[in-house]
Amino acid sequence: MSPTALSLSALDGLPEVSPGMALAPLIAAALERQKLAVRDDDVLLVCQKIVSKSEGRFVDLDAIEVSPRARELASRCGKNAGVDQSNVPDSESRALLLPQDPDGSARTLRAALSSLLGATPAVVITDTFGRPWRQGVCGTAIGAAGIVTLLDRRGEDDRFGRKLKVTQTPVADQLACAATLLMGEGAEGRPVVLARGVPAAWRRESARAADLLRPVAEDLFR
Amino acid sequence: MSPTALSLSALDGLPEVSPGMALAPLIAAALERQKLAVRDDDVLLVCQKIVSKSEGRFVDLDAIEVSPRARELASRCGKNAGVDQSNVPDSESRALLLPQDPDGSARTLRAALSSLLGATPAVVITDTFGRPWRQGVCGTAIGAAGIVTLLDRRGEDDRFGRKLKVTQTPVADQLACAATLLMGEGAEGRPVVLARGVPAAWRRESARAADLLRPVAEDLFR
Repeated sequence: MSPTALSLSALDGLPEVSPGMALAPLIAAALERQKLAVRDDDVLLVCQKIVSKSEGRFVDLDAIEVSPRARELASRCGKNAGVDQSNVPDSESRALLLPQDPDGSARTLRAALSSLLGATPAVVITDTFGRPWRQGVCGTAIGAAGIVTLLDRRGEDDRFGRKLKVTQTPVADQLACAATLLMGEGAEGRPVVLARGVPAAWRRESARAADLLRPVAEDLFR
Repeated sequence: MSPTALSLSALDGLPEVSPGMALAPLIAAALERQKLAVRDDDVLLVCQKIVSKSEGRFVDLDAIEVSPRARELASRCGKNAGVDQSNVPDSESRALLLPQDPDGSARTLRAALSSLLGATPAVVITDTFGRPWRQGVCGTAIGAAGIVTLLDRRGEDDRFGRKLKVTQTPVADQLACAATLLMGEGAEGRPVVLARGVPAAWRRESARAADLLRPVAEDLFR
């Protein structure tokens, strides 16, 4: 069920994305420059940042009225959730929000890529999150189309015939982790990574990254 | 700084590991069967399970005295931390603990591989952990030798000259996530993955997976 080999390639030379700019032609051109012929069983991992830029999710910081409570929280933790200023032009005066509907953004991008490329790769929109107990920010799938996000292997046999009890594999998050290593998050300017080797069994038309969220009833941390 | 391409290959045909069995010759033989000539800049990701088996970290369940408090917790959550019964032979009567010193295990395995292979790849010992808020178990580095585990990029410039404020990349955890997709955790029997493409700048003789743990003083979740 799991792949025996997996390869990841970062796309180079994507331009700075501004609001309204379509991503699919930029990605198709980069693939062509690198002579990467995309296949249906490939996965394109796309950093949230260029999706948000393309969707015009900029917010003018001067136009925001900050409540005393938000000011107090920000002074304690020094940051704002869901708002990002790194790799944003004019970041003194504006920040970038997440896409409004990242699963929808993934589906839209996948359809546009399909009509340009003559193949229909899966699309995963990635972000990075901090995490409790461990240092560093890890890749995360916030939107997906065409690939299973959470693979449920509970009930399968292990090597000795014992049933797996807890094994659910967050496929899209773990692909996002691998891709994030190539994207780099600094000045690299490599927001798209092609992953090849994902098995056919992981293709899933109905998959959504929202399925990775733990249901509130099972969540010990809220 | 980050790689532009990364490839991962799972090793096949490793035998069931029993206590006292040395891992380095098994891994070297599997690499040779697959005609993979290991290099100094490769990373071998090794599942905790075969390290624990090799180190004889089995525990006889009948010999354990279970306190009422442990019994109550287990009945509420249905599991035991740090103790594993999947892919363990005779799991009705015994379980497998984590290696006692996973960073030490990684260093020992790396030295043994180095003398057998004529090259000195980095070694990462992987496990999978559940996580708050999100479903599924993700790859994690619990031991490492020869590769940076947490890459600190704070203070570097982004594409627009703004300093990165929070970007610390958990390199070893994210490699573990990618490798876990190939290991599979079910009946695959593929506990070792070779990663190629890691940049020379990520080699680090002093690195330890223990550096990935968030210091208690910064931890909001204890």
